[in-house]
Amino acid sequence: MDYTFSNKISSLQPSAIREILKTTADPSIIPLAAGNPAPDAFPIDEVREISANILKNRPIDALQYGVTEGYQPLINTITEWMKNKENIGRSFDSTLVVSGATQVMDLTTKVLCNEGDTVICEEPSFIGSLNCFRSYGCKLKGVPVEADGMDVNALEDALKNTENIKFIYTIPNFQNPSGATMSYEKRKKLYELAKRYNVVILEDNPYGYLRVDGEDNPTIKSMDEDGLVIYAGSFSKILSPGLRVAYCIAPQQIIAKMTVGKQAADVHTPCLNQMIVDEWFKNYDVDAHIAKIQKIYKKKIDLMCDCINTQLGDFVEYVKPQGGLFIWCKLPDNVDMLEYVQKAVEKKVAVVPGNAFLMNDTDTTQYVRLNFSTPSDEGIVEGIRLLGETAKEYK
Amino acid sequence: MDYTFSNKISSLQPSAIREILKTTADPSIIPLAAGNPAPDAFPIDEVREISANILKNRPIDALQYGVTEGYQPLINTITEWMKNKENIGRSFDSTLVVSGATQVMDLTTKVLCNEGDTVICEEPSFIGSLNCFRSYGCKLKGVPVEADGMDVNALEDALKNTENIKFIYTIPNFQNPSGATMSYEKRKKLYELAKRYNVVILEDNPYGYLRVDGEDNPTIKSMDEDGLVIYAGSFSKILSPGLRVAYCIAPQQIIAKMTVGKQAADVHTPCLNQMIVDEWFKNYDVDAHIAKIQKIYKKKIDLMCDCINTQLGDFVEYVKPQGGLFIWCKLPDNVDMLEYVQKAVEKKVAVVPGNAFLMNDTDTTQYVRLNFSTPSDEGIVEGIRLLGETAKEYK
Repeated sequence: MDYTFSNKISSLQPSAIREILKTTADPSIIPLAAGNPAPDAFPIDEVREISANILKNRPIDALQYGVTEGYQPLINTITEWMKNKENIGRSFDSTLVVSGATQVMDLTTKVLCNEGDTVICEEPSFIGSLNCFRSYGCKLKGVPVEADGMDVNALEDALKNTENIKFIYTIPNFQNPSGATMSYEKRKKLYELAKRYNVVILEDNPYGYLRVDGEDNPTIKSMDEDGLVIYAGSFSKILSPGLRVAYCIAPQQIIAKMTVGKQAADVHTPCLNQMIVDEWFKNYDVDAHIAKIQKIYKKKIDLMCDCINTQLGDFVEYVKPQGGLFIWCKLPDNVDMLEYVQKAVEKKVAVVPGNAFLMNDTDTTQYVRLNFSTPSDEGIVEGIRLLGETAKEYK
Repeated sequence: MDYTFSNKISSLQPSAIREILKTTADPSIIPLAAGNPAPDAFPIDEVREISANILKNRPIDALQYGVTEGYQPLINTITEWMKNKENIGRSFDSTLVVSGATQVMDLTTKVLCNEGDTVICEEPSFIGSLNCFRSYGCKLKGVPVEADGMDVNALEDALKNTENIKFIYTIPNFQNPSGATMSYEKRKKLYELAKRYNVVILEDNPYGYLRVDGEDNPTIKSMDEDGLVIYAGSFSKILSPGLRVAYCIAPQQIIAKMTVGKQAADVHTPCLNQMIVDEWFKNYDVDAHIAKIQKIYKKKIDLMCDCINTQLGDFVEYVKPQGGLFIWCKLPDNVDMLEYVQKAVEKKVAVVPGNAFLMNDTDTTQYVRLNFSTPSDEGIVEGIRLLGETAKEYK
């Protein structure tokens, strides 16, 4: 049989990152292309203890159907935590538990966008989210990311000159892939512009607690007096990505529609997984665990930057990020970036070619994305050494 | 702020079943409206033991990111199991692990349908699937369900006279809500028609192993020489719905597109949950567990039918199903069905009004759906007694 696929799926390619990850399932390739939390950042003993208790004391709750909104104790835990920690959540807001933060992007697009509508994104931006918006037939309008976040003048131009903009997508902290963090001034300006042009902001904050240097900025959602902001939070980077538990805090009118959409998409997030997260908050010191992870990542980012400075200092340009998982490196202008990445894979080190993060991934860029959380310390040293060796071929 | 929602989500109402379930969170209401597995059907001790072993021996695999296709050992387990048990899976087929079978409906619609395309459904049919198709802006074309399954003459008329049909959705075993099982002859005819009109079949088989009487019919997918059939299987009814693990077996060209769609929607199904299912197959006797569940449900369905015959015998008409979870009861023509359901809730017993399962839920029907798996045996006796009491008001 000849299959005819929908227009929206036909336009979509498999995520380049995940395809690269697959080719690097080969354990001899050093994985600087991934975005996995460091294995020693998982609270393994805690999860083991919590799971045993849940399946001993409340097995039916863990195994039976749940409601789409989420496990109510976890909703309460998240709501209170976000209120105390981030001043997020006003009387008009509500909380939805989702199956990983990507589902927030999915449901936001489902409830706000018709095919052909436009989503404004930072350029470059996280390919998973871009593909999600594309999967609904949305057009992507890129706004450049500067060292202190989105170019707000370019944003205003885009808001003025583009039709049917439904939301602005931003990763304000340690942006993927650029590593940039948006300044407080730009956050205020972004909010003001969204309000003036009557456009929703989708604030995606997976890396916010992976700060290793500098001071936190308030979330955009904490400024949300007007019900403009959909906030996506995740436990993937502070607890476990494999459990697939994340959350959305947004005006309850929007959450109500997202709940209907989630009901039709996957009914609910697994109960056992939600209960594990909730019991983690109730029985362990989450802030202490976050502090522990920050230490792990500080060590790794410092190590990688030292190695880059030594091995690649005269080859790449980069700004050391204050946290997150990624370093965004610019190759010299005379280097064919895709060729360099290919040569690096042949030397058994994988990085992500930067064009994967562009609105149109056939555009060219000199950037590659390096990740320091997945490889071991030895892997970082050896990986950067191999990238340096690859660079020598261009001298 | 005034929110403008997408056309597809605006047309969608919250699932009537889930709304009824919420009003009946009140434990004093007897839940004949649900579709939950019986609590004693869960292999609790097994899941507890399996989880402890996974989190002891391979915690990082359980907590780290996984690939979108699914946990490879589970893919192998499912593929082999379906081959042996159902003769499902040919050289052109592939297997995708999903987050509950509803995600198969979601991904099928995402990859095959543009807005305005038509999905042919049995009428009545499972509201969750209907809402999923609606959430992509699809039109629904209903084909009546008879005691031996879909009216294949009406199906042929629909195939002849409807434009842009992308697939035919069927629950061939113990259909939700009608309880009907499609005969072998009709399965063959359905396949032949789909082939002749070049339309995909989406075969949803959540209840297939809940047979308590009679003989199995071959799945439609087992007849699939031509790559026409997308098969949705689930562990929700034989292991646990709260774990949200299900699978899709379909031609690999379709699975490849569904994988891209899933990547953009929720990245992957939780690793811990997939490993639990895989270890269950590897370390326990799944067939023996299925036989145990069938015994539980045979007792419950017999009890409910006995009660109906005694308490409601002169009021409702129904055909006793050979398995599944539901009994589909027709009220007398002079009874206002919705009023009856409302009166029943006031007497503290909940059933689902049959219009929830129609293509257009503002159409009227005399049917209500009763579930026998969720209530305790005492709940079944008392629930049907209360429905009988409600019926007396119409005499």
